Amino acid sequence: MRKAGRHFLQIPGPSAVPDRILSAIGQQTIDHRGPDFAKVGMRALDGMKSIFNTKEHVFIYPSSGTGAWEAALVNTLSPGDCVLMFETGHFATLWKKLAEKLGLKAEFIEGDWRGGADPDQIEAYLAEDKNHEIKAVCVVHNETSTGSVSPIAAVRQAIDNANHPALFMVDTISGLASLEYQHDAWGVDVTVSGSQKGLMLPPGLSFNAASAKAMAANKTATLQRSYWDWAEMVGPNKTGYFPYTPATNLLYGLNEAVDMLHEEGMENVFARHARHGQAARAAVRTWGLEVLCAAQGQESGVLTAVKLPDGHSADAFRASTLEHYDISLGNGLSKVADKVFRIGHLGDFNDLMLVGTLAGVEMGLKKANVPHNAGGVQAAMELLS
Amino acid sequence: MRKAGRHFLQIPGPSAVPDRILSAIGQQTIDHRGPDFAKVGMRALDGMKSIFNTKEHVFIYPSSGTGAWEAALVNTLSPGDCVLMFETGHFATLWKKLAEKLGLKAEFIEGDWRGGADPDQIEAYLAEDKNHEIKAVCVVHNETSTGSVSPIAAVRQAIDNANHPALFMVDTISGLASLEYQHDAWGVDVTVSGSQKGLMLPPGLSFNAASAKAMAANKTATLQRSYWDWAEMVGPNKTGYFPYTPATNLLYGLNEAVDMLHEEGMENVFARHARHGQAARAAVRTWGLEVLCAAQGQESGVLTAVKLPDGHSADAFRASTLEHYDISLGNGLSKVADKVFRIGHLGDFNDLMLVGTLAGVEMGLKKANVPHNAGGVQAAMELLS
Amino acid sequence: MRKAGRHFLQIPGPSAVPDRILSAIGQQTIDHRGPDFAKVGMRALDGMKSIFNTKEHVFIYPSSGTGAWEAALVNTLSPGDCVLMFETGHFATLWKKLAEKLGLKAEFIEGDWRGGADPDQIEAYLAEDKNHEIKAVCVVHNETSTGSVSPIAAVRQAIDNANHPALFMVDTISGLASLEYQHDAWGVDVTVSGSQKGLMLPPGLSFNAASAKAMAANKTATLQRSYWDWAEMVGPNKTGYFPYTPATNLLYGLNEAVDMLHEEGMENVFARHARHGQAARAAVRTWGLEVLCAAQGQESGVLTAVKLPDGHSADAFRASTLEHYDISLGNGLSKVADKVFRIGHLGDFNDLMLVGTLAGVEMGLKKANVPHNAGGVQAAMELLS
Amino acid sequence: MRKAGRHFLQIPGPSAVPDRILSAIGQQTIDHRGPDFAKVGMRALDGMKSIFNTKEHVFIYPSSGTGAWEAALVNTLSPGDCVLMFETGHFATLWKKLAEKLGLKAEFIEGDWRGGADPDQIEAYLAEDKNHEIKAVCVVHNETSTGSVSPIAAVRQAIDNANHPALFMVDTISGLASLEYQHDAWGVDVTVSGSQKGLMLPPGLSFNAASAKAMAANKTATLQRSYWDWAEMVGPNKTGYFPYTPATNLLYGLNEAVDMLHEEGMENVFARHARHGQAARAAVRTWGLEVLCAAQGQESGVLTAVKLPDGHSADAFRASTLEHYDISLGNGLSKVADKVFRIGHLGDFNDLMLVGTLAGVEMGLKKANVPHNAGGVQAAMELLS
Repeated sequence: MRKAGRHFLQIPGPSAVPDRILSAIGQQTIDHRGPDFAKVGMRALDGMKSIFNTKEHVFIYPSSGTGAWEAALVNTLSPGDCVLMFETGHFATLWKKLAEKLGLKAEFIEGDWRGGADPDQIEAYLAEDKNHEIKAVCVVHNETSTGSVSPIAAVRQAIDNANHPALFMVDTISGLASLEYQHDAWGVDVTVSGSQKGLMLPPGLSFNAASAKAMAANKTATLQRSYWDWAEMVGPNKTGYFPYTPATNLLYGLNEAVDMLHEEGMENVFARHARHGQAARAAVRTWGLEVLCAAQGQESGVLTAVKLPDGHSADAFRASTLEHYDISLGNGLSKVADKVFRIGHLGDFNDLMLVGTLAGVEMGLKKANVPHNAGGVQAAMELLS
Repeated sequence: MRKAGRHFLQIPGPSAVPDRILSAIGQQTIDHRGPDFAKVGMRALDGMKSIFNTKEHVFIYPSSGTGAWEAALVNTLSPGDCVLMFETGHFATLWKKLAEKLGLKAEFIEGDWRGGADPDQIEAYLAEDKNHEIKAVCVVHNETSTGSVSPIAAVRQAIDNANHPALFMVDTISGLASLEYQHDAWGVDVTVSGSQKGLMLPPGLSFNAASAKAMAANKTATLQRSYWDWAEMVGPNKTGYFPYTPATNLLYGLNEAVDMLHEEGMENVFARHARHGQAARAAVRTWGLEVLCAAQGQESGVLTAVKLPDGHSADAFRASTLEHYDISLGNGLSKVADKVFRIGHLGDFNDLMLVGTLAGVEMGLKKANVPHNAGGVQAAMELLS
Repeated sequence: MRKAGRHFLQIPGPSAVPDRILSAIGQQTIDHRGPDFAKVGMRALDGMKSIFNTKEHVFIYPSSGTGAWEAALVNTLSPGDCVLMFETGHFATLWKKLAEKLGLKAEFIEGDWRGGADPDQIEAYLAEDKNHEIKAVCVVHNETSTGSVSPIAAVRQAIDNANHPALFMVDTISGLASLEYQHDAWGVDVTVSGSQKGLMLPPGLSFNAASAKAMAANKTATLQRSYWDWAEMVGPNKTGYFPYTPATNLLYGLNEAVDMLHEEGMENVFARHARHGQAARAAVRTWGLEVLCAAQGQESGVLTAVKLPDGHSADAFRASTLEHYDISLGNGLSKVADKVFRIGHLGDFNDLMLVGTLAGVEMGLKKANVPHNAGGVQAAMELLS
Repeated sequence: MRKAGRHFLQIPGPSAVPDRILSAIGQQTIDHRGPDFAKVGMRALDGMKSIFNTKEHVFIYPSSGTGAWEAALVNTLSPGDCVLMFETGHFATLWKKLAEKLGLKAEFIEGDWRGGADPDQIEAYLAEDKNHEIKAVCVVHNETSTGSVSPIAAVRQAIDNANHPALFMVDTISGLASLEYQHDAWGVDVTVSGSQKGLMLPPGLSFNAASAKAMAANKTATLQRSYWDWAEMVGPNKTGYFPYTPATNLLYGLNEAVDMLHEEGMENVFARHARHGQAARAAVRTWGLEVLCAAQGQESGVLTAVKLPDGHSADAFRASTLEHYDISLGNGLSKVADKVFRIGHLGDFNDLMLVGTLAGVEMGLKKANVPHNAGGVQAAMELLS
């Protein structure tokens, strides 16, 4: 039986793609070596610089965000190099596994998945690394599995305090274009991101922003690379081209997305996400449930991960909610599998969509017989109005 | 400044067009005299029969619903003919004015705009028309200006009770495909409808369904007609063609719409609208406001018209709500201008969209300082879950 | 079996709709009473003035072009009024029948379907109408059934020479935006047009442009009218609105179309069509076939109607060509049914599409065993390059 | 100034994307972990098996075709392994460079860029490799830079004749779904392909088909890999999922493409391309120009590379042709830069589009003052009809 109305895609990415972007993507493909393409490519590269807040290099890959993680590492490091990573959650853990798979040695500062990376621990760790064995510090900005935000500027400060020369790499796949991000001002060397979150695109594009220091590291880094190699990109990118066939139609969408973000104003975009996060947490508190992120001030405006009471299956709740209210919620991953669900409130989203989303959760809790107090939606509305 | 997220188009039509239909409409236009078109046309004509529940003739016009009103009259009546109409609200009044403009004499049973047409009054009126001066009884099924539903089967019974030969014409422009409709079983002679309501299409198509009795009347009716003439349509329609260039792309959309309705199941479509009407009214009651339709059992599942407290401008409220919550609500028309606003809950719509809609109204009431009690959204959710 | 590649829709309208317009039409419908709509509506009304080359009134109907024919007559004339029409072909004949159906008396200057209207005959006719019984002169600008163009400015001069007060009405349904057209400069009182030809839209919109004289006639004209009534339009149009629900999505497309035409430049649009007409006729001559239009200088840049040798069925040829080369050609209508076929070269079209089109005809002639000389395509290419 | 009509995108890929596929890609993104996605993913994986003619594994990457080249090598080989490649042209050369970049040793059988790979040379080479140093034989099926086709079944036979255990890898990026391809029957171990050629999609997806022998090699191969790793794909693919976020919208398009190919019939698709290749070569011969592929029977049905007379710049010709006739032709690459141009006749293409394309070339040759005989288009038409 067909379900009427619009599906609520409230996973923490992909976010629902706005019509303007779908329409842009649906335009006819053009010659990626012809003069018209140069304008498309240049606009995309420049546009992404404005989003990363960087004057340095941006690289665009036809790939998922996973590819951009790999690109960051293989472009700047050599086999056996040591990287320091922080266990903010599932995605930080995946990045660590990827690093190991590539032949790097990954030091992992353990975390409890309830907050962002801790600058103090990082500083302490680096301070002890007298020989500068650590070649890169890798932090997840917005941990999509938990809804916690790491203080990137403070991590930069921690590295500086330790007077450590390591490269600083940040994954803001799910944070970019939803939370403030300053590649240059925060002194990040490599930023990793993807298309299907705050950029409101379908999945299929990923990004690296690279500082001069990272570009210098690229010259000596010996990890095997070809598809991801920045060095091959730099030349063609100067005139808006790419060394291999780019994902032209997604680039059309990217250009539309960047326009849309600037039409709204980045400050407004960030404020909107912050406000929606607050409203979502107000609902959760009213329901008497617990937000997974326990670190005050580090709760994400992108998503809210919610713990179910013991003995209740988050996945059964999500399946029931999908069936009855046509809303997709994010699942708990690895350590918190079946224990939490995640509400995405990112991308092209507004107050009434948020209320609809929270209503889906509240009615779903009732339908799935999860103990909770009613009134969460009303609480969110009070905060919003 | 760009507004983020999806606009809530909650006027009582046009309703938001689902992506499947927009995509169908966006297909390339074809030769309207070629063999492929015959399939498109035949499917549209047959599909609309299934929606009207008729085995008789359906006519499709490239026009707004207003055109189908005119078509119903000019195809069956002659200058100076008398028609009996019932003042259910603004649209019944417009239809009457149109009849007069065409040179018909319109008897108007006055109504208070707070309920559907009254079969008893109609029966009484007809019973007195011993000479059968009245050639047609015209009733609005779902009065879009008030949110009241006329009991069509009971009106048919009233005509039969009076043993009156008048044609029975029904405007279900905003009722079709949202409320149950039975052209044949209810003994309607001409049904009038449009594309942009329950059919979920953009505006631009209108419809007549015509009984054998109406087709017979067409042969002797002398009102001037050309564009609207059924007689020119019948022949080409037999093989799926039209006497003049049809609105091909809207027909693509129509065929998709009919498929979607049947995929959901017409009974489910009707139940959904009824349930959403109940939930909307539960919210209105909680707010302490009054639903315009005062006739129990005649409240519409398509829209809910709400009276604002005296001294408050409904249009100012709507403007504020549009600005702050990006939701379009319907305005009050003529007699109730600036006194009521209308919440559309028709077309491709679901529970979470309804909650978002009602949240827009509730937060809007607060923002516009309209006295009301909070909790309407919560009341609607209780009804929905 | 699926046919590969793009269908060649080479009937003389609807013309193939460009992607930009399909994409515009596929945007979400908005509130036709809201503030955003006013911009859409105003842009459409102003845009069409730029296309008609008029500073006076333009009316936009959700209807086929047939509706705009009717609108022109019912808005300006009264029952029994006499109109002078010229038999340029099938569509002139249809317009005459329509006039008669509306209760007008139509004088028809007979033509041989091989040229445009003859100003001398019109002048002579009017000169004899001492009592000014004739209230309107109606001429088809681009006769879609024959591919002949009437000299509109010369017809105006003929009316002036006869010192006759009749209104001057012109159907440029298939000429507008392909051939030069000057509503004001040529002194036309009512111009009739449609969306699916030079405007590159799907069918579903039609137009009237009306002079001050026509607007004055509207005040006294008594033909029955409601849907088509200009008087109801004028008020709402002033702020970009319409008296009944407009075909919003087609208006989106119209606005895109007007932009596209101006981006190309109207002079370039006209030159392109003229050049393509020349090339098509060069091909026809090389094939040894006859162009239906025999009046030098009146051959259309919109379409070329071609006579088949006696004993050969144009419809069989068209069916075979559609089957084998996936190209739709126009059929011969009424007097020339099965004797001619029509090649549309209008709308969003270029040199290589024309060569493909002519190749479809030439290969089709061979496949259908129609006697002809090869080399028509080559001749067209010589003219084009 | 806007150019009217449809651009002719006649590079040898990306090919023009048909509307059905653009429309499919423009559908809303869904939860890539939800139940609906499993159907999309399963259909894509199964569909691609039908295109590769394999019952074994197919892997789908969000990446350009370059990525799939890399994937083929890193999944099956170890650092320092030796691969035998054949210099069919520019793309074979690029693949060799890529192999070397990954730390493989590449033996390159030199070729003159005027034909496909030579099975005899490969057999002779392998016969001498007594120690089986060569771990893989890599051949380009359809060399996009030259328009030559390698005889894949014969290369398989050559490997068998030499009784050599090397893996057999084939790049059919530009051949798949245009030329016959039999992954299983031809005994290929890894087939590499991409989305933007015969599959008619925008760029952004790439493919590996892998035999059981290749899957076994994957277990011991030690080249560094993560994003490309088949081992991570196999599990999730079983139920239609992917280990990382897939390019959902391109998968929608892929599913539509596979349907379209089967609706036409793969045999018909292949015959169409072969016929168009013949017609294109007939035109080239008439012009008095030389087809780059000199090996009879190995000329491609996908594209035709044409040599310009000495002293004439192919790139100047292409630029002029783009400007005057709005057609994109492929450029000559590396060794043949500025000496040849390439006519793509692949993907969703038909007879009349081919004639239009060849007309663009012929009129372009005239405009650019390249010495040639007229009549090429006419010759192609004779062949086509």
